[in-house]
Amino acid sequence: MIDLRSDTVTRPTPAMRRAMAEAEVGDDVFGEDPTVRALEEETAALLGKEAALYVTSGHMANQLGLYVSVRSGDEVWAHEHHHLVGDEQGATAVLARALPRMYSEGTAPSDALLEEWISGRGDVHRAEPALLWLENTFTGRVVPLSEQRRVTAFAHRHGLRAHLDGARLWNAAAALEASPAKVAEGFDSVSVCFSKGLGAPVGSALAGDADTVARARRARKLLGAGMRQAGIIAAGALHALRHHRERIAVDHARAALLAERIARVPGLGARAQTNMVLVDTPSGRAAAYREAFARHGVRVLEIGPRTLRAVVHLEITDGDVETAATAVAKAAAEL
Amino acid sequence: MIDLRSDTVTRPTPAMRRAMAEAEVGDDVFGEDPTVRALEEETAALLGKEAALYVTSGHMANQLGLYVSVRSGDEVWAHEHHHLVGDEQGATAVLARALPRMYSEGTAPSDALLEEWISGRGDVHRAEPALLWLENTFTGRVVPLSEQRRVTAFAHRHGLRAHLDGARLWNAAAALEASPAKVAEGFDSVSVCFSKGLGAPVGSALAGDADTVARARRARKLLGAGMRQAGIIAAGALHALRHHRERIAVDHARAALLAERIARVPGLGARAQTNMVLVDTPSGRAAAYREAFARHGVRVLEIGPRTLRAVVHLEITDGDVETAATAVAKAAAEL
Amino acid sequence: MIDLRSDTVTRPTPAMRRAMAEAEVGDDVFGEDPTVRALEEETAALLGKEAALYVTSGHMANQLGLYVSVRSGDEVWAHEHHHLVGDEQGATAVLARALPRMYSEGTAPSDALLEEWISGRGDVHRAEPALLWLENTFTGRVVPLSEQRRVTAFAHRHGLRAHLDGARLWNAAAALEASPAKVAEGFDSVSVCFSKGLGAPVGSALAGDADTVARARRARKLLGAGMRQAGIIAAGALHALRHHRERIAVDHARAALLAERIARVPGLGARAQTNMVLVDTPSGRAAAYREAFARHGVRVLEIGPRTLRAVVHLEITDGDVETAATAVAKAAAEL
Amino acid sequence: MIDLRSDTVTRPTPAMRRAMAEAEVGDDVFGEDPTVRALEEETAALLGKEAALYVTSGHMANQLGLYVSVRSGDEVWAHEHHHLVGDEQGATAVLARALPRMYSEGTAPSDALLEEWISGRGDVHRAEPALLWLENTFTGRVVPLSEQRRVTAFAHRHGLRAHLDGARLWNAAAALEASPAKVAEGFDSVSVCFSKGLGAPVGSALAGDADTVARARRARKLLGAGMRQAGIIAAGALHALRHHRERIAVDHARAALLAERIARVPGLGARAQTNMVLVDTPSGRAAAYREAFARHGVRVLEIGPRTLRAVVHLEITDGDVETAATAVAKAAAEL
Repeated sequence: MIDLRSDTVTRPTPAMRRAMAEAEVGDDVFGEDPTVRALEEETAALLGKEAALYVTSGHMANQLGLYVSVRSGDEVWAHEHHHLVGDEQGATAVLARALPRMYSEGTAPSDALLEEWISGRGDVHRAEPALLWLENTFTGRVVPLSEQRRVTAFAHRHGLRAHLDGARLWNAAAALEASPAKVAEGFDSVSVCFSKGLGAPVGSALAGDADTVARARRARKLLGAGMRQAGIIAAGALHALRHHRERIAVDHARAALLAERIARVPGLGARAQTNMVLVDTPSGRAAAYREAFARHGVRVLEIGPRTLRAVVHLEITDGDVETAATAVAKAAAEL
Repeated sequence: MIDLRSDTVTRPTPAMRRAMAEAEVGDDVFGEDPTVRALEEETAALLGKEAALYVTSGHMANQLGLYVSVRSGDEVWAHEHHHLVGDEQGATAVLARALPRMYSEGTAPSDALLEEWISGRGDVHRAEPALLWLENTFTGRVVPLSEQRRVTAFAHRHGLRAHLDGARLWNAAAALEASPAKVAEGFDSVSVCFSKGLGAPVGSALAGDADTVARARRARKLLGAGMRQAGIIAAGALHALRHHRERIAVDHARAALLAERIARVPGLGARAQTNMVLVDTPSGRAAAYREAFARHGVRVLEIGPRTLRAVVHLEITDGDVETAATAVAKAAAEL
Repeated sequence: MIDLRSDTVTRPTPAMRRAMAEAEVGDDVFGEDPTVRALEEETAALLGKEAALYVTSGHMANQLGLYVSVRSGDEVWAHEHHHLVGDEQGATAVLARALPRMYSEGTAPSDALLEEWISGRGDVHRAEPALLWLENTFTGRVVPLSEQRRVTAFAHRHGLRAHLDGARLWNAAAALEASPAKVAEGFDSVSVCFSKGLGAPVGSALAGDADTVARARRARKLLGAGMRQAGIIAAGALHALRHHRERIAVDHARAALLAERIARVPGLGARAQTNMVLVDTPSGRAAAYREAFARHGVRVLEIGPRTLRAVVHLEITDGDVETAATAVAKAAAEL
Repeated sequence: MIDLRSDTVTRPTPAMRRAMAEAEVGDDVFGEDPTVRALEEETAALLGKEAALYVTSGHMANQLGLYVSVRSGDEVWAHEHHHLVGDEQGATAVLARALPRMYSEGTAPSDALLEEWISGRGDVHRAEPALLWLENTFTGRVVPLSEQRRVTAFAHRHGLRAHLDGARLWNAAAALEASPAKVAEGFDSVSVCFSKGLGAPVGSALAGDADTVARARRARKLLGAGMRQAGIIAAGALHALRHHRERIAVDHARAALLAERIARVPGLGARAQTNMVLVDTPSGRAAAYREAFARHGVRVLEIGPRTLRAVVHLEITDGDVETAATAVAKAAAEL
């Protein structure tokens, strides 16, 4: 079975396991775990930010970014398909008590929309705009840096903060041939993930200026998400950051190849800008195709009534791509 | 100055003032105000519900309906222009801590959307659907009862509750030539307003089954919105309910006439299904027209970049309609 | 039946009813109600604050004062019997999401307690102290101004805000022979009530600096507690403020007399510093005494296993005091 | 330096590190991590509950237990020194939005208090009682099982749920010579910790019936606290559960010895029921003693103005106890 559902399914490599087994640890709740500290410092440096905070998931990094950026009842501007509103349960309403204001086209709000939304400011009938949210990559699409700059500049001009959900920022950086710091530029807070493309077993980080991160650290404790000898898993994340970041380009090349092969299958379309192949099926038949693929040994996820995603990751080899492409063609032929 | 911004601007009539001055009152926090009790009972009866609760505003009636219908982190399905999400600040996130899931077309979600949304149920990444929200009338449009039945039936089939924002339910009933109870049918909770079309100085109600209303009564106290000798203003609402409900059809006829007159003005479009005239201006010029109207003595509200609303109410006479139509034509000619 | 349960049970006088019937009103949500504005301005002036906000209850005035003074997860310092924690449901946790830290002795925290509590500041295990809460009068007791100054000075020295629950501030002022402004001095926000001792049918106010009140006004709207032609009931409050404030001393004299008479009854103790008579019954027998009094035509409230309260108000005459004292003595003799 | 601040400071043993390095893992967010599943099943079995959930900290296990047991605005009954109210920031107000009602004497509320508190039920002025909270051990004191039974029986008789904060439940079981299941009996939810006495690097669990745990699992995701290949650290917890539980009695014996030695030091008192030695210093001098101990190589925590705690754990040997006792005596002699 070739598992292309997500790049979160990777298991630690032997070298990573060794790093974890030998990790120097301390009580991180007392701020005394040297491995966690090293991970946080290296992450902050890579992202060009003053500080970073190690947390258990990208979801938590996002929610902490939100929590420290808004007051109860404030408005966050996001795409209706951003992870923040569609994949983090009702956390946005429960934790930060923020109200999302959403757009449904493109990867960032248009200028016209930004102007319309800011014009309602101060109206007692509306939530107060406080935060602009972006995601890069966003469902496999790379957001151009010029787009990011356009909207973060608008946000700052009007006193809003800007947050980047960088769950796959390493992929965006690779695709844009830019440094992570360049992708994170202009954002007050950024979340990144060590488990997806990088293959660590557990963890994400929230980066930003020192004050933002200090408040997020406090809020992490409020959630009960401080860990004692977290250095064990932080060692896996640190290993991933040091040794798996460069190889992300390989995943992208494999995804491109897989997309190319699938696009040739009659009835299917496919495209990949990073490690995520988006597969278009005939309308309303995504589930049928997903099941057919599974019967031929390829697991993918359904992300819309006609769209599947197949994510290439650390455990997928050139041979797997070949096998998967062949299996997909066979499965499609049966439908 | 003819004020058509909203039907909330009406002042109490002399008869209504008399009713308030002579109201029998008691301490409503101890449940001892006879006028409040009468108002709540008559409202419940009119709406075909077991009970009703008098509150200070439609916004509060809605938020209490939401609060008692969901648990923290649940999902409410609403139109992006429903009062609930666009006009009640961030209350939806702050009080009930509900996450809105929104559609942007039509007056109720399509069957396809309902099916898609319910299919995500139980997914740990998603908020749990708990409540279907409707508004009738909705920005001046009357929602057909068959539409209401279609979606409330879906909601109940899947264990969701249904709420009707009936801020202008009296207008919907008049336009549909149906009883208020018929319009409220199929909803677990309904808000109605005594101040808009009915012209009372203060107040709305939330109606539903006895348990729903008992919990809302408790939640009203949590907000600190219980009032002592509320009978004073409840008397105004009761007077409005008894004496101003039938005359709503007159407002509708006047609004139809005003719409007809405005539609003839070059560059403008206009339509009215109830007491609300929606005026279409050339793209992006709503503000300019609003200001021009004001210079000619007619106040209206801007509700979109090209749309104005002009609301006919208790204080607007046939003569005012005539004067307003003439003023609008003059103002438009100057632009 | 002589109703001494609370001073909230008073009904509007004929003069007050006239004031309400003739009130000039406007749409207060648009800020256009002249009577509300007059009430807010006179209240602010009386309390020596920049601004005031008219709200439906003391509970709401308190909760808004809390909401604008803290961030989610902050700590408010209060007595365990303050109205804020014991009589406002779970609103403190639901609205402001504040955690109370409580003392149980005296009318204000001791210096030792203040020092202990502030010492935990910044500790990641503790909620962050943000607000010091006081109540004057507090269950019938008058808090000396020197006590107020001692603790508000401490609060401000450490960057905390201070709020005064002045539900019976007019009584405190009368008892202390100080101006209301003097009693409100040193507090960032103060709630006062128009319905208790003053006898208006509905309403309280929150006073403070302009920014505090502006934010509270916005938060009042979040609760849906803005009212349209609120001038009707505000007229009652304004009448009460202008005409009933001076006569509070009369209630105090009657309460003193009633306490003196009850204290002579075998088995009972009684004391009154203001309009509230606290009656001590033999241990655990408060309920029995309350019922006996009721059988003899006097209604009081139980506020502890051995304590009853009897509140003198606008509708209680010298004759009522006489009758009540006699009835209490008879009732006690039967137990 | 002998670190007796807390039993959370222990670092993983070589055997535990081996277990982690070799752990079989999967994606726990998809429910596919066999090591996590084994840990959860063994924990549930040990505690005599249907299910258990692995989480990052005892704080989180408690907060999830609270979150699934109450509705917004409900009341939780706790001691003012319970970890829930004093050591989890303002989480109780922020996450579950519960209002604590607190007692300050003993280890469980007295019958009189329980009766008084339940009597207010249904009162619209009070938060609704929903949950009784207990902690065993509680600041080093062992709560007798009969005490637990008395109050949990009361809770259930009145429809409240009961939660046990069992951060040191293994110590309570050892001290009571009872099985963990016996200590957990009568509680709807129980938190236990793998890091304190057991010495695992990260993690706690919440146990209860299947429905409670399923809802807590969902709420854990809401916090963003689901982990991917959590088996790595779960393996450490599983190792601790299997191999370090029996040896807790050794810590207790060492703590008893340390207490005995410290109690002989002039000016100091000391007692230990489990692994926690509570040291009484002359009034107000706790900080001075703590600093003096530190100068002599012994780190302890201040938990009150006159009380220090010294916690014996996995890394403390007989020799350390000897050394610490001697150091304490020397330090005390200097003050």
